[in-house]
Amino acid sequence: MLGGIYEHSEWVAHSFVASTTTTTSTSITTMTQLANALKTIVNDASKEQKLQLLQAHPDLCQKVSTTTTLSADSQDEQAKSGLQSSLTDTEQEQFTKLNTLYKQRFGFPFILAVRNATKYTVLAALQGRVTRTREQEFQTALEQVHNIAWMRLLTKFNLQASTCQGFLTCHVLDTANGCPANNMRIQLHRLVPAESAGLVGTFVTNQDGRLEGGPALKGGQQMIVGVYEWTFYVADYFASKGTYTAGTPFLDTIPIRFGIDNPDDHYHVPLLVSPWSFSTYRGS
Amino acid sequence: MLGGIYEHSEWVAHSFVASTTTTTSTSITTMTQLANALKTIVNDASKEQKLQLLQAHPDLCQKVSTTTTLSADSQDEQAKSGLQSSLTDTEQEQFTKLNTLYKQRFGFPFILAVRNATKYTVLAALQGRVTRTREQEFQTALEQVHNIAWMRLLTKFNLQASTCQGFLTCHVLDTANGCPANNMRIQLHRLVPAESAGLVGTFVTNQDGRLEGGPALKGGQQMIVGVYEWTFYVADYFASKGTYTAGTPFLDTIPIRFGIDNPDDHYHVPLLVSPWSFSTYRGS
Amino acid sequence: MLGGIYEHSEWVAHSFVASTTTTTSTSITTMTQLANALKTIVNDASKEQKLQLLQAHPDLCQKVSTTTTLSADSQDEQAKSGLQSSLTDTEQEQFTKLNTLYKQRFGFPFILAVRNATKYTVLAALQGRVTRTREQEFQTALEQVHNIAWMRLLTKFNLQASTCQGFLTCHVLDTANGCPANNMRIQLHRLVPAESAGLVGTFVTNQDGRLEGGPALKGGQQMIVGVYEWTFYVADYFASKGTYTAGTPFLDTIPIRFGIDNPDDHYHVPLLVSPWSFSTYRGS
Amino acid sequence: MLGGIYEHSEWVAHSFVASTTTTTSTSITTMTQLANALKTIVNDASKEQKLQLLQAHPDLCQKVSTTTTLSADSQDEQAKSGLQSSLTDTEQEQFTKLNTLYKQRFGFPFILAVRNATKYTVLAALQGRVTRTREQEFQTALEQVHNIAWMRLLTKFNLQASTCQGFLTCHVLDTANGCPANNMRIQLHRLVPAESAGLVGTFVTNQDGRLEGGPALKGGQQMIVGVYEWTFYVADYFASKGTYTAGTPFLDTIPIRFGIDNPDDHYHVPLLVSPWSFSTYRGS
Repeated sequence: MLGGIYEHSEWVAHSFVASTTTTTSTSITTMTQLANALKTIVNDASKEQKLQLLQAHPDLCQKVSTTTTLSADSQDEQAKSGLQSSLTDTEQEQFTKLNTLYKQRFGFPFILAVRNATKYTVLAALQGRVTRTREQEFQTALEQVHNIAWMRLLTKFNLQASTCQGFLTCHVLDTANGCPANNMRIQLHRLVPAESAGLVGTFVTNQDGRLEGGPALKGGQQMIVGVYEWTFYVADYFASKGTYTAGTPFLDTIPIRFGIDNPDDHYHVPLLVSPWSFSTYRGS
Repeated sequence: MLGGIYEHSEWVAHSFVASTTTTTSTSITTMTQLANALKTIVNDASKEQKLQLLQAHPDLCQKVSTTTTLSADSQDEQAKSGLQSSLTDTEQEQFTKLNTLYKQRFGFPFILAVRNATKYTVLAALQGRVTRTREQEFQTALEQVHNIAWMRLLTKFNLQASTCQGFLTCHVLDTANGCPANNMRIQLHRLVPAESAGLVGTFVTNQDGRLEGGPALKGGQQMIVGVYEWTFYVADYFASKGTYTAGTPFLDTIPIRFGIDNPDDHYHVPLLVSPWSFSTYRGS
Repeated sequence: MLGGIYEHSEWVAHSFVASTTTTTSTSITTMTQLANALKTIVNDASKEQKLQLLQAHPDLCQKVSTTTTLSADSQDEQAKSGLQSSLTDTEQEQFTKLNTLYKQRFGFPFILAVRNATKYTVLAALQGRVTRTREQEFQTALEQVHNIAWMRLLTKFNLQASTCQGFLTCHVLDTANGCPANNMRIQLHRLVPAESAGLVGTFVTNQDGRLEGGPALKGGQQMIVGVYEWTFYVADYFASKGTYTAGTPFLDTIPIRFGIDNPDDHYHVPLLVSPWSFSTYRGS
Repeated sequence: MLGGIYEHSEWVAHSFVASTTTTTSTSITTMTQLANALKTIVNDASKEQKLQLLQAHPDLCQKVSTTTTLSADSQDEQAKSGLQSSLTDTEQEQFTKLNTLYKQRFGFPFILAVRNATKYTVLAALQGRVTRTREQEFQTALEQVHNIAWMRLLTKFNLQASTCQGFLTCHVLDTANGCPANNMRIQLHRLVPAESAGLVGTFVTNQDGRLEGGPALKGGQQMIVGVYEWTFYVADYFASKGTYTAGTPFLDTIPIRFGIDNPDDHYHVPLLVSPWSFSTYRGS
């Protein structure tokens, strides 16, 4: 069942099964723990095994339709990146040239976790990464392999399981007045995946600047891996405080777009805001 | 021609004309200078004159159709705020109660620069401002009057005049790597006004993290008062640097929405960004 | 006992006593609540009463030794600002000129909460505030009066009382790696007041980036009004993560200096940090 | 002359000399270019050569006095880190244990650019880095080697040369009022090296929030590698704007401490500030 998680590298799954049967490691209860166990097996493997793992990955450049070494998962992932259909002749040429240079320089194919990536992503990544040192690139390629493995785990297993521990919280601080932003209206939309896109909820901040009613998302049914967007109605808030803003406010409704990669994690995505500046970050 | 800029207060325009004829003040060449000259006249007026100016403003609560004291400009502005059509009975009741309280408490009507404002804006502003001191509220009401005057000036005069000095610039700094973000793709859209909405341009940052080719907007033809949105393709950029990001990046395309209120001004709207945080501000 | 809190304005204390005897307002248990009660009495007074309150304040410019209208509290506060001793002739001249202009323009003396202020503070404040409108300056002067009242309350009452609810917390987020900064060393020093200055404690962050052991300061014995400084050992932290920094790190030990004004409040003073950027704010 | 820059690895210097004689590379005019040329030689070397370079480094744990494989430069650097004198027995034990584990795990000694580092730095770095993967650690060790090489180049060559192009600039933005901070007083102190420590200068911001008179430091005589500190008088500034702050301001004088590692570079170290928040970053 775990065989295809690391491309053409059954040994990762075999090692995992071996480790779980010999030791009494019954401690794996979340997707994150499973992913970390597999990751550790790969990280602890020899340099040669890692190189083989990298080399086992398909060449992004080859046509999906003509390759037989591409796993079904890889075909699906590359189709979603729109690589096959949308390249102009110039881009195709540039892509082929960089891809060839990359393989010559590093001895393994260019690897990128490409779900939702565009041709701009792939070309930018190729252009930048082809100039780096072998050590840097070996390391980065392994990270991409782990990212791909994670995406495959998410697809393979039922994420809406009740075991998911993740949740999404918010906090709004008014840096013009040095206090939590009370009574600010906030909306949350899911943008990706398309099939569950739409308004998730409308919230109002309490006296501590946090959402009345707790997390905006909680557990596997709600913490769907994808892209989200807060909308903060900051001009309305500053109007209620009498804080000066322009006639056409510099900041009115502020969108904060962010991705959720792991339904087991706590995502804290706050807003620090004055009428003339704001910032956000992945908090905890 | 300047008569209606300050609601039912011709004396502001008269004072201005008087000042320009007695002194040889030929130095007013921009809209900003004109607005500031009028503003100074109001600010230097007596307390009683200011109070009369505030009291000359229409009551937001009265129906547009039934009032005769509402100037044509005010009618237009209130219609755009959607106040008449969209209030529920409960909201109307809340609105009426707060508005009455406000007038009793302060002795002048509630004033808010309402173009593009929604009922949420107006109710939030009323709720917050009704609780403040007379001194605070007198001051805030005057600021709103100046904002309204500015919006009327912008409507009355030809903004696409060649004299407009304003421009819009950008800068992207990579706070994960401590350097300007080179070769990042950026788009600029105009969202408001609807009649000129759409993609304004696609840009790429240079080695200093600034836009190749100079300002994104320049002069009156381009610096249209309204709402704009940058889109920064940050995941593509970090992919090119080999900087670690998640499979579904926390930050992929970042929208930064902002208003341009004054076509004479320089708007510098930069981005400071790591794969896990970003901030922006009105710079210079 | 409350008579001198608002300069030469016994009516504030009388109103307070009247309000506490007529109503059964036994709800005042903290210094903050007392200050707010007095503040509300002043804010609800008539314009004339407020003006008299402003006019009751001593002229900052007059020599402490020669004035008899200066209350004992004011004498103490102005002595601490070092105004009398340190002005050069040019500064004295500038100060006198601005001060005269200020009184002519606004009809009340220039008021500034001056404990710990230097001549630079006073001159900068005078220069800037003399140019504002009467409404702005009346409002600002009242805020300064409230600040002075607060400082006098703090001096008059025993702040080390067990009723003080305030505490100081910290949080460190690593914006380069998108996670709480675990195992970072932090020190806290008190800089002012001089008599209790020194190292308050050394802390280490836990897995959530917060201080092991709870608040760094708690209650009246520790939450002394004054100036504090965190020292964050960020280069050591990034060295432990293997995150790239320069040989002479751009950020090594980061000092964050901040004031505590109210021993009843929660002060949350966090750090968001990458090897190339940081920010802080008054949080909650 | 370049022989000792990379520890016991004369081949780097030989390669460099070879490259400069065969090609007509007369383009190296700055220290940065020289360092980058040597760095490229190392980065382009074989995996085995790099491993030998890492292995050529002395063991941080061995006593300086008893080792003969330690180069003179390394002895000097380790003495400055205070490792020999200040370790307690417990720390020494912990250090020895981690160091042994590190060598077993990775096959090369623990390398850290230690000038100005303390025992806390070294222990934190060891603790964190011993848990990473071989690929990550190989990469990080190489970065440390480049940092050490850079520090040795700086020591070996006359940095006060007129060819140094670096300079230090500042910018202050007022995020509470959305404008450049005009007329703010700023001081710059040098903290390290001790022999040239002290006040560098006092500055005032102009209308654009920048330093009157251009860069605070310029060229090799002034851009001394070391630690610096801005002091921003922000409470004085906000007092002049009439912006509300507390009686004991949350932010009064703000110190921003930062390192200058490369006298050839432009260091832009700005401040974004409201009365309740601030941030800074290495800008450009």
